[in-house]
Amino acid sequence: MTFSFARKLAAEALGTGFLLATVVGSGIMAETLAGGNVALALLGNTIATGAILAVLILIFGPVSGAHFNPAVTLAFLIRREIGARDAAVYVLVQIAAGLAGVLVAHAMFGEPAFAASATARTGVGQWTGEFVAAFGLVSTILGTVRFRPDATPYAVGLFITAGYWFTSSTSFANPAVTVARSLTDTFSGIMPAHAPGFILAQLAGAAAATLIFRWLLREG
Amino acid sequence: MTFSFARKLAAEALGTGFLLATVVGSGIMAETLAGGNVALALLGNTIATGAILAVLILIFGPVSGAHFNPAVTLAFLIRREIGARDAAVYVLVQIAAGLAGVLVAHAMFGEPAFAASATARTGVGQWTGEFVAAFGLVSTILGTVRFRPDATPYAVGLFITAGYWFTSSTSFANPAVTVARSLTDTFSGIMPAHAPGFILAQLAGAAAATLIFRWLLREG
Amino acid sequence: MTFSFARKLAAEALGTGFLLATVVGSGIMAETLAGGNVALALLGNTIATGAILAVLILIFGPVSGAHFNPAVTLAFLIRREIGARDAAVYVLVQIAAGLAGVLVAHAMFGEPAFAASATARTGVGQWTGEFVAAFGLVSTILGTVRFRPDATPYAVGLFITAGYWFTSSTSFANPAVTVARSLTDTFSGIMPAHAPGFILAQLAGAAAATLIFRWLLREG
Amino acid sequence: MTFSFARKLAAEALGTGFLLATVVGSGIMAETLAGGNVALALLGNTIATGAILAVLILIFGPVSGAHFNPAVTLAFLIRREIGARDAAVYVLVQIAAGLAGVLVAHAMFGEPAFAASATARTGVGQWTGEFVAAFGLVSTILGTVRFRPDATPYAVGLFITAGYWFTSSTSFANPAVTVARSLTDTFSGIMPAHAPGFILAQLAGAAAATLIFRWLLREG
Repeated sequence: MTFSFARKLAAEALGTGFLLATVVGSGIMAETLAGGNVALALLGNTIATGAILAVLILIFGPVSGAHFNPAVTLAFLIRREIGARDAAVYVLVQIAAGLAGVLVAHAMFGEPAFAASATARTGVGQWTGEFVAAFGLVSTILGTVRFRPDATPYAVGLFITAGYWFTSSTSFANPAVTVARSLTDTFSGIMPAHAPGFILAQLAGAAAATLIFRWLLREG
Repeated sequence: MTFSFARKLAAEALGTGFLLATVVGSGIMAETLAGGNVALALLGNTIATGAILAVLILIFGPVSGAHFNPAVTLAFLIRREIGARDAAVYVLVQIAAGLAGVLVAHAMFGEPAFAASATARTGVGQWTGEFVAAFGLVSTILGTVRFRPDATPYAVGLFITAGYWFTSSTSFANPAVTVARSLTDTFSGIMPAHAPGFILAQLAGAAAATLIFRWLLREG
Repeated sequence: MTFSFARKLAAEALGTGFLLATVVGSGIMAETLAGGNVALALLGNTIATGAILAVLILIFGPVSGAHFNPAVTLAFLIRREIGARDAAVYVLVQIAAGLAGVLVAHAMFGEPAFAASATARTGVGQWTGEFVAAFGLVSTILGTVRFRPDATPYAVGLFITAGYWFTSSTSFANPAVTVARSLTDTFSGIMPAHAPGFILAQLAGAAAATLIFRWLLREG
Repeated sequence: MTFSFARKLAAEALGTGFLLATVVGSGIMAETLAGGNVALALLGNTIATGAILAVLILIFGPVSGAHFNPAVTLAFLIRREIGARDAAVYVLVQIAAGLAGVLVAHAMFGEPAFAASATARTGVGQWTGEFVAAFGLVSTILGTVRFRPDATPYAVGLFITAGYWFTSSTSFANPAVTVARSLTDTFSGIMPAHAPGFILAQLAGAAAATLIFRWLLREG
């Protein structure tokens, strides 16, 4: 059950592309239908995102590990389960595929190819949110792959389902997602100037969880 | 664990019939109760459809493979896992059973037996949506049956749950469903003149996913 | 892993009691909070009912089979997997425990112990709904217990989740539930005079599914 | 697969902390977005809480048993599966971590560190609700760990999902959660003076379920 690196990259690309098409597409659909009711809009966005994450990890997990996320790739780099060079290529593919996913969503809904978002998402509260979100996401992955690997796809989908509601930033938790969402001026967008703050918080949260779980899951 | 062809056809008929009764019935119920709030109406429609898909594939998968969908049967035909003649009979049964499911929904809710839908669903954006929906649905099936066959029923239900929200066409993703929904003038309907565009996009998406996954899941 | 008959009856009682406390209690809560939005009220009622069904079947399935439902007991009687006398006691316990569950719900929400419902639920459309609901419920059970017994609790929860939306009668699908809901004058109630029509349709649907699945799942 | 007591405590702390951050954080988010629609607010709160519970039990179950709840620790103490001294330390850690979780939620949403809640939650009806909630929660755990331990995380998440809607008290079902929620003056708060009534009802419900399941699951 080992796949060529080209196939792994294709899996990362398809997965990250579908993830962004879902996040952005369902945001547009939900906001359009909800008629100003933001709770309902977030609900539609949540259901679609949580569901597709479980599906994509089920499909692509056996091929590429289903990272779809530079913060997750960072965690596996720290754990030396992926090399630095492969990790760098993974990240580049994730970012490119995330942008392609936004293009697909915009094509489906008749939006311009790309548009810088005007949605402010910044401040200590939201950065704390992103730290918590990435910490929780990496905890979910590292905490389930050892004893309950069959449950990982569902656990990740459920964690992000919760994260959309309990973090003040709605749990982007993913630098590739953050870059891609900076180029959609729709429900799920984030102003490009505010992306770096999110990304730093995400990488910090992912690294912290990796270190804590290294200690926690050592038996004895 | 092999079943006679008659039993396979009965399984396809019961499954496709229940699927359409659910799609159309829950559309009527949700629109009636939602009082003009389209997001809530789509939410009720989504929950029912995603849930019943998982159930129907759990029940009928071991008997017929639980296609319920000519685009899925096409994928298995391309993969030579079903013969051309059996595939043709499957498709005819799926279409007939889909119409029967609409009848059952209309009987439950006191609607006329059949009525051509007046709902326009057309254009490049929505065709792109149907291509993406069928591509994703077939990816979900082919991507899970090999390494995670126990998860396929849930994965399909979750994919369509997401698809109702992230594709601009709300993921019909199924030619038999498209034909059947052209004959209900309720929430889930599609104008008969617009059905062929949807069906072509679905078949193209299903074929594309089949070819890509043939390459992707070859190991090495 | 065999349990005494007294333990089986206790399991049926606890399960059916919790089921009714959930159906009636969540109906009261949802209607109160939804402020006239019936789609939202049904949504709260649906989520609670589908979730508790999966839980109760997980808990009590190994002890009593987790029928909680005279229509399901009828199906197993037709299949000779339970004797006539035991089946009769099961049904009596289910009905009594269902009433106790209504009492608990009313106690929690400060309602009178029992009150005849004033909600009309009748007519050919709704009876068709109950036939379809019980047919589908028994199909779900018989269709999963053989090849996918681990999935039965989730499948039943998901079927009723769908049924609350796609059947015109909101899928009571259970004579003990119907009797109990005739004595609550809240969201989930049914006028006592309309209960017999529902119950007859439920028993007919359950019997029909039992006969069809006897043929369908015979291999060869 | 045995972990040091320090690791067990860390698991209880991380789990209970995330649980409270989710309950309180999603309550704030949901109430803010729902604009006065309490059913929608409870829905967002429910989805986040049910989802995170399944995730946290998947992650931390193999390490500490994933109690996160003094009422659950009491149940295992009665069953002599944990000693009195270890149980006492578990409970202290759960309470402290719950408070830390509230702090994190408040930091994310820009609320003051702690604030006594002004929300009245009292009376026989709500105490009955908490008894039923804790009885059901402990039944869910004891009823699944023996025959279906893989299902316990999902079952607990689903039980609380139902409990938020079918109990009049919205199923706190957890003394550590109750203490922590008394110090947030947001959607999920409970007036400190009303916490003791909830806690007594929870402990009574947990003890009752423990005794009943001791008898019920003895075979023969």
